[in-house]
Amino acid sequence: MSTKPTKGVNLKSLFLGDRAQNGKFYKETLAHMIDEHFAWRQNYMPQDKGAISVRDQQDEGYKEGLVRTTEVLEELSQLMRIKSVPFQSGRYQGHMISETLMPSLLAYSFSMLWNSNDCAFECSPASSVIEEQVGYEMAHMLGFTKGTGWGHITSGGTAANLEAIWYARNVKSLPLAIAEVVPEYVKGKSEWELYNMPVDEALEIWSKVDQETRDKIKSHTARSGRNIQKLGKWIVPQTKHYSWPKGADIVGIGTDNVVSIPVTEDYIMDVNELEKKVREFAAKKIPIIGVLAVVGTTEEGQADPVDKIVALRKKLYNELGIYFYIHVDAAYGGYFRTIFIDPETNDFAESYEKMIELQDEYNVFADHKGCRIPESVYNAYKAMGEVESITADPHKIGYVPYPAGGIVLRNKTMREVSGYLATYVFGNGKNIPALLGAYMVEGSKPGAAAAAVWAAHRVLPLNISGYGKLMGATVAGANFLYDFLKDRTYIVGGKKYTFRMVYVPATNMIDWVIYEEGQKDLAKINELQNKFYDLSCFSAGPLFFNEWIITHTDFAFKDYGDSPKPFVCGDLGISDAEWDRVGRVTVLRSTIMSPYLGDKKLFDSYAASIDKVIEKRLQKIVLGK
Amino acid sequence: MSTKPTKGVNLKSLFLGDRAQNGKFYKETLAHMIDEHFAWRQNYMPQDKGAISVRDQQDEGYKEGLVRTTEVLEELSQLMRIKSVPFQSGRYQGHMISETLMPSLLAYSFSMLWNSNDCAFECSPASSVIEEQVGYEMAHMLGFTKGTGWGHITSGGTAANLEAIWYARNVKSLPLAIAEVVPEYVKGKSEWELYNMPVDEALEIWSKVDQETRDKIKSHTARSGRNIQKLGKWIVPQTKHYSWPKGADIVGIGTDNVVSIPVTEDYIMDVNELEKKVREFAAKKIPIIGVLAVVGTTEEGQADPVDKIVALRKKLYNELGIYFYIHVDAAYGGYFRTIFIDPETNDFAESYEKMIELQDEYNVFADHKGCRIPESVYNAYKAMGEVESITADPHKIGYVPYPAGGIVLRNKTMREVSGYLATYVFGNGKNIPALLGAYMVEGSKPGAAAAAVWAAHRVLPLNISGYGKLMGATVAGANFLYDFLKDRTYIVGGKKYTFRMVYVPATNMIDWVIYEEGQKDLAKINELQNKFYDLSCFSAGPLFFNEWIITHTDFAFKDYGDSPKPFVCGDLGISDAEWDRVGRVTVLRSTIMSPYLGDKKLFDSYAASIDKVIEKRLQKIVLGK
Repeated sequence: MSTKPTKGVNLKSLFLGDRAQNGKFYKETLAHMIDEHFAWRQNYMPQDKGAISVRDQQDEGYKEGLVRTTEVLEELSQLMRIKSVPFQSGRYQGHMISETLMPSLLAYSFSMLWNSNDCAFECSPASSVIEEQVGYEMAHMLGFTKGTGWGHITSGGTAANLEAIWYARNVKSLPLAIAEVVPEYVKGKSEWELYNMPVDEALEIWSKVDQETRDKIKSHTARSGRNIQKLGKWIVPQTKHYSWPKGADIVGIGTDNVVSIPVTEDYIMDVNELEKKVREFAAKKIPIIGVLAVVGTTEEGQADPVDKIVALRKKLYNELGIYFYIHVDAAYGGYFRTIFIDPETNDFAESYEKMIELQDEYNVFADHKGCRIPESVYNAYKAMGEVESITADPHKIGYVPYPAGGIVLRNKTMREVSGYLATYVFGNGKNIPALLGAYMVEGSKPGAAAAAVWAAHRVLPLNISGYGKLMGATVAGANFLYDFLKDRTYIVGGKKYTFRMVYVPATNMIDWVIYEEGQKDLAKINELQNKFYDLSCFSAGPLFFNEWIITHTDFAFKDYGDSPKPFVCGDLGISDAEWDRVGRVTVLRSTIMSPYLGDKKLFDSYAASIDKVIEKRLQKIVLGK
Repeated sequence: MSTKPTKGVNLKSLFLGDRAQNGKFYKETLAHMIDEHFAWRQNYMPQDKGAISVRDQQDEGYKEGLVRTTEVLEELSQLMRIKSVPFQSGRYQGHMISETLMPSLLAYSFSMLWNSNDCAFECSPASSVIEEQVGYEMAHMLGFTKGTGWGHITSGGTAANLEAIWYARNVKSLPLAIAEVVPEYVKGKSEWELYNMPVDEALEIWSKVDQETRDKIKSHTARSGRNIQKLGKWIVPQTKHYSWPKGADIVGIGTDNVVSIPVTEDYIMDVNELEKKVREFAAKKIPIIGVLAVVGTTEEGQADPVDKIVALRKKLYNELGIYFYIHVDAAYGGYFRTIFIDPETNDFAESYEKMIELQDEYNVFADHKGCRIPESVYNAYKAMGEVESITADPHKIGYVPYPAGGIVLRNKTMREVSGYLATYVFGNGKNIPALLGAYMVEGSKPGAAAAAVWAAHRVLPLNISGYGKLMGATVAGANFLYDFLKDRTYIVGGKKYTFRMVYVPATNMIDWVIYEEGQKDLAKINELQNKFYDLSCFSAGPLFFNEWIITHTDFAFKDYGDSPKPFVCGDLGISDAEWDRVGRVTVLRSTIMSPYLGDKKLFDSYAASIDKVIEKRLQKIVLGK
């Protein structure tokens, strides 16, 4: 992959444009590529009789087929235009969807014509090679070493997370299986030591034995169904996505074994609480399968302190001989790591100061000169190379169309421990890329998705000069919005309404509450947010005419404990008793994925309109008009 | 969905064509649809400043972005053209890939521009409705009742199979959970009776209790991690796809609990053996989680006798009170059910005679007048409505591009038992389609995939007049090939080589062995097949110039037991001792997915060429030239 710095590339040239400003380029390029596909068909074995003759095409049934096709597609076009969300506009700040990279759209539309399936190399000789390449690129981007690291595309982050917990479960059971099959390799180790053997140590033993022994060991791992309940706990932060309890359920670890760690008021995992919990379990001789860190939380865009979790693991291993698998769920935040990668060395910026220097040099924050990535976030991202596996979705802030999730492993030997082989999908021992279907939770997968990611990586290198600039543009946009909304005040019906921000954005997500001055009833405050959301959401009348679309969420005690309390009782001035009574705060949320809002003039033009929209909506809520 | 018969539609008008004969239509239609998408962007909030100005477009960095995009896409086009398989030609008989329906390609290419994600309705108001519709259509096609049946698109068959075994595991544990939480509902039932409670009975109890009780029951099901190992065995036929042991591994049932049932010499599950096995387990009080039937086996295209399995379950329930979940893996064979569906009633043909009458009326077997679907296959498909769940992939013989697998449930209450909810993906109690992410193994999923399936279902109704004709065309093609290869003889280097067919094709897959007359050494026979495959496979030199591409597989004793023996010892005249010694037979395979080969003239033109190719390859193998 080219690592050539791209100081010069204008991000706006890489998207279709809110008004399809690059539409002509899109259509012409696609038409050219489709022609190349057609040429391939037309020139294949020219000696053959064609399957469709010009006489066939005169047939009434033939014409009927084309008419019917046209009719159906017209109906589809109507449906999509009536109901789709206007993600291309700066007015859309709802879910995590946005414009996607034009090169990726083109690559997908083109590659789809070849209908390749990367599950098996035999039916995707071209795109399987592309996917293997993309997997290595992602592994490198996320901190793993080429050669030992490995990755692939999944249908999405949920599938990647499931695969990770499956790998974690199986590799955790590996030392027990080794002890059963070849006890001489773990001589003198207690059961507790087996439960706490570092992953690399177990994989090293695996690498030493022959294939037949490996197969035997494999059949004694958790795949057999045995011992799963003995493997221990799966620890997650309170901010976890719901795919995590679901994942623990699916792989048989069970939701009973999922342990939630409180988050701080910054909505990141409280490592002190984690340490306390791990020590508690250790004292009871309950092992820990693994710890999940979320980087790019669904609701807040925050990053758990991966560095501190890694350091804690080291400390506890040295002190108590405890080891646990660490998985980073960076489904959302994964590509954000490019904002730290030095274009010259293609490695993580060696220091925080160097990061600042490079981000300034490449002008990553566009028109927002005051943006800075907090050092804590730098540290969290830096430590990612030390964990076992990471989820990172190209179809989120990789700006690639669905479906393109991704997972990477630090030590690719792990895939052997979980892998399956099938005779018919194998190429007779030939030197071909890994048979993906054997290693993944999923099977069939479009080669077109890998091609779309591949194209994106080439147009935007995975460093500060490429993707980093795109990430920066969204951080800039989010900060402009934060600056705009913060302490914004409206007087409606004699009452004063102020915007109170829940946190300073770490990346590109913003949560806030509209506070009615003097309101002490938290339930009423929540009601106000819900009313505002009802006017600002995807289902508030015709989407196409909605002038500002945002989303919302609830921070409830049940999920978040007292983490929202400092905001609720501090910033909103709600009493402790009232927080205890209501136990939830509804917040409004903007996800700024637009690649355009780092442009201050553009942002200001939207802001002027949004200002009026807010006033209008408050009037509707308060005055009923 | 229109159920209007389409006697008149010519199938050839629905594919791009081996020489892109419909290329002009494809490009023009796509350009028109893209224009409609652009118009939607261009006319959104015309009062807004556009994000990209014509001045931006003059910038050097802007031009650089477009040049870079073009460069990258040129490289992609090269890669795809050099290495992709020529699936559009009748010469390609390798993996299960082929031309896909042009309306689906167009629908995908268009819908992708909207980048919707059907995981959550909030970001896919248009395509979520489309997916819900498609799910009901698939459920109906596969024999389930609208209202109670339900389904959705998955990334593929492996994901659908995994979801099925997850549902099976959870619903099997439901009676135990009920007994723990609300014992009054299962008063007097023994533990054995709880393990054997019919699915619908357990779901009925579930439906009677309130939401809070349901949540409590849910937390006591297998999702908690408890009792999984007590739930019993998962029974599969020997012909199972490797996604089945993998699925049992992933959901914690474990490969140790997967029990293989021998297949008959027709490669379908031997129901007598199944009965024996179930009785054995019952005698030991070991419950059965479920039984898998494969309809459209990966290696043979055969259908397990679903009717007999359903009948056996009834018999054993009445006799011994034993109940098990039944899943049908019709990932490959699912859409084949349309060849039995009466276009007038849109229901399964009421009798075998009626089926024949309708297939004749609609001329489903094109030029092959002798084709008949065996009554046993009719019966197997007919009984599918009585099972709990079915996998059926649009991206296999639904002729829709990847990714489009599918799963359907007979009783949609099952999804509640396994479901998860997340605050932020929910629409404040509004009346919207089911939140798919809560019910599926996977999460994010392209709305474009649902749109592609939707378009296919509208162009080709799911009955004999639509999809049925497409299915029939491939059966005709497969039978032409079978007729052509059967007993075909070549004399090379003084030796006689004859083609021996492994079975009469049930659908569109053919396996055969090239037999050297007088050869008694099975290993040598296998070697001949491997050598022939090496010249006929995707990796035998430049794919683009390979004149006949097929695939191969091994039927080994380890997987298939003695099922291949009648063929090996009968048709090939190998001794019993030799079979015991070698324990595997390598067979060559053609998958006939081409929608064109039901045209006899076209088939004959390919056959004439393939005849020469066979001779040439045998000469190369035998004479080394």
